[in-house]
Amino acid sequence: MNVLVGQSGGPTSVINASLAGVFQAAQRRGIPHVYGMVNGIAGFLEGRTVDLSAILDNSLEIELLKRTPSSFLGSCRFKLPNAADDETVYQRIFQKLTEMDIGFFLYIGGNDSMDTILKLSDYAAAVKSPIRFMGVPKTIDNDLFETDHTPGYGSAAKYIAVVMKEIVRDATVYGNHYVTIVETMGRNAGWLTAAAALARGDDCEGVDMICLPEIPFNVEHFIEKVAKMQKKRASIVIAVSEGVKLADGRYVCLLSDDERRVDAFGHTNLTGTARYLANRVAHALPTKTRCIELSTLQRCAAHLSSRVDITEAYQVGGAAVKAAFEGHTGEMIGIRRISNDPYQYVTEAVDVHRVANLEKNVPLAWINGEHTDMLPAFLQYARPLIQAELSPIFIDGLVRHTVLDRDNADLSDNPPVKQ
Amino acid sequence: MNVLVGQSGGPTSVINASLAGVFQAAQRRGIPHVYGMVNGIAGFLEGRTVDLSAILDNSLEIELLKRTPSSFLGSCRFKLPNAADDETVYQRIFQKLTEMDIGFFLYIGGNDSMDTILKLSDYAAAVKSPIRFMGVPKTIDNDLFETDHTPGYGSAAKYIAVVMKEIVRDATVYGNHYVTIVETMGRNAGWLTAAAALARGDDCEGVDMICLPEIPFNVEHFIEKVAKMQKKRASIVIAVSEGVKLADGRYVCLLSDDERRVDAFGHTNLTGTARYLANRVAHALPTKTRCIELSTLQRCAAHLSSRVDITEAYQVGGAAVKAAFEGHTGEMIGIRRISNDPYQYVTEAVDVHRVANLEKNVPLAWINGEHTDMLPAFLQYARPLIQAELSPIFIDGLVRHTVLDRDNADLSDNPPVKQ
Repeated sequence: MNVLVGQSGGPTSVINASLAGVFQAAQRRGIPHVYGMVNGIAGFLEGRTVDLSAILDNSLEIELLKRTPSSFLGSCRFKLPNAADDETVYQRIFQKLTEMDIGFFLYIGGNDSMDTILKLSDYAAAVKSPIRFMGVPKTIDNDLFETDHTPGYGSAAKYIAVVMKEIVRDATVYGNHYVTIVETMGRNAGWLTAAAALARGDDCEGVDMICLPEIPFNVEHFIEKVAKMQKKRASIVIAVSEGVKLADGRYVCLLSDDERRVDAFGHTNLTGTARYLANRVAHALPTKTRCIELSTLQRCAAHLSSRVDITEAYQVGGAAVKAAFEGHTGEMIGIRRISNDPYQYVTEAVDVHRVANLEKNVPLAWINGEHTDMLPAFLQYARPLIQAELSPIFIDGLVRHTVLDRDNADLSDNPPVKQ
Repeated sequence: MNVLVGQSGGPTSVINASLAGVFQAAQRRGIPHVYGMVNGIAGFLEGRTVDLSAILDNSLEIELLKRTPSSFLGSCRFKLPNAADDETVYQRIFQKLTEMDIGFFLYIGGNDSMDTILKLSDYAAAVKSPIRFMGVPKTIDNDLFETDHTPGYGSAAKYIAVVMKEIVRDATVYGNHYVTIVETMGRNAGWLTAAAALARGDDCEGVDMICLPEIPFNVEHFIEKVAKMQKKRASIVIAVSEGVKLADGRYVCLLSDDERRVDAFGHTNLTGTARYLANRVAHALPTKTRCIELSTLQRCAAHLSSRVDITEAYQVGGAAVKAAFEGHTGEMIGIRRISNDPYQYVTEAVDVHRVANLEKNVPLAWINGEHTDMLPAFLQYARPLIQAELSPIFIDGLVRHTVLDRDNADLSDNPPVKQ
């Protein structure tokens, strides 16, 4: 019996470490073929898979994989229909799985991706298929339930904390009145924005304000706070979530009257919170302003990943294979923290029904009363996750990656051999 | 006799390595006090200096200084008047220099800052002052004449090349039509944008288009090129300079009708080229788009500096002190390349009159005929400058810096002792 693994949803710096963990755990168990879905379940439905056993064939390749950001196999955003509404797609999937002699199906992703595990494992139970379906958690957003944190968050948090330190240094250079507003990802959950609080230390004054989407936002109060802060310090640095909303639920970034936000498909572009706020401050106060969007840099800066995060990403991949071998299905591997200091954790399999399609927010008790900063409880939670580094492999001055030629990946090139 | 050193203009990741080079070269020559101007010549005129000999008092502090981005002493943008128009400011400066027993005045900066060296050394000659004035080159823009390149450029180029590799990986993840436009600094000279060409390699397809300010820009042709490229490859990544202009000289970023560009001071904000172009592409073509501004990250990412750059920055600082001791004045230390492979160079003192206020552009002969890519001559020039790394010192998961409490720096706290 073979293993099939896929990556789904937004990429992270460490999602490929989970792929390495799945691959090596399966290989050590004597699995003949570890197949990868190219572009997740969507690509699988188009017959696009690769035989990873033929590609990841030496230990250097595995090390490069751990250091390569974004999803090695490619990703997708694809929601399976309910089996009650449309059973044909399930029949196709299970027929393919049977043809490829798949015994274990591993899916690395976030809350949307866990919906795929939920539906496939429910369908397997309904049709009495012996195939086991396990989820491997992944998201920089850190918004999954039933796990202390998600692989991908630690590296994104480390990146945000480090560049905030660098931005604070840069922003103080002229000693003049200056407001820098830095926008982080995290539409509904403020975990990434909160990570800016980690920048403060005995060599850094830290950021002056942190605005999470969990707290209703008021533009006028924001400007008042900035004005008050600038009386004490000329250069103010603020971390703001792309997803901050007014009390009435409107996104701050949509207050801009920028009509070009809608593209040719009618897609609405939801960045621009920092830009909007910097413009408002520039109009209201006698100060220079700058907005910085960390954009995709915060999820792909593998050159600055957290070793704790890389290690955990690898481990949850391996733990998912182990659990599947032991009979688990319809579950996700969660991380349960045993202690903060020393930092200790174990992995455990949790019911994917308690994870899929749900979002975990930052506890309000971890935010200060003025809604400008994180309390020590958050720092104690987050600090262990950014510890230590995995040295990039530099070749000719640049970080080295490993890349799959996905365009040429298909079953005809990599014929599965049924055992 | 003492040394006075200042930092001026925009910061870089390695400007503090030049400060370390000046400091240690002076100390080894038995100079009793190495004073730092706080916020450059502007702060000096307000009496704000620090005695670096008392602050940089151990070798770990020097190592941290080399790893701290932005200007340790603070910076300024201050243009001296012509002495013929207003001699009083010169009289004040030279009186202060005499009071502090300054024999050697070192200024670390770019073409604007070299104007300060030019004017002060010319004035010194006119009044027969024995004080020697030397410039230490610094700018991420790499636009100084009389030097092969400028310290600061190599690290910015390395940062841009590395993050372009990471952005390319991220942008290909879904396999869908996607145009990512990345904006780099460099108002009139395209050196930073050109560095995006370094990303291409056997593990990276590289960026698909590079738009330099040296080449007149045509928005319609740009969109046509993107459309053509997307027929071959779904995900297109483009590096564009913030300073690209139409044939008639108008900045592309100012074509946007965004009236909020002008702040409370009437300052015009000149970023937004990538955003404007991404919006234009999104309206014209059936593709998703994203714009990423590298903003100040490209000049302050000391966690990813080039060791070649750090070393050279340190060396030009030391060479400026050596030259001043040997009698040079009114000059800047330039880097003269001896060979590309192996990379070899020497430093030399060059007349600051041939540097100040001038900008060196990217040679047009290094750009391909379609104006979309850099030719091998550029890669041979730039590749040596991004080689090797200086490991950051990580404490508790974050890069460690050293910081001067500039707000509390003044002469009364650090009384100069006249020797």
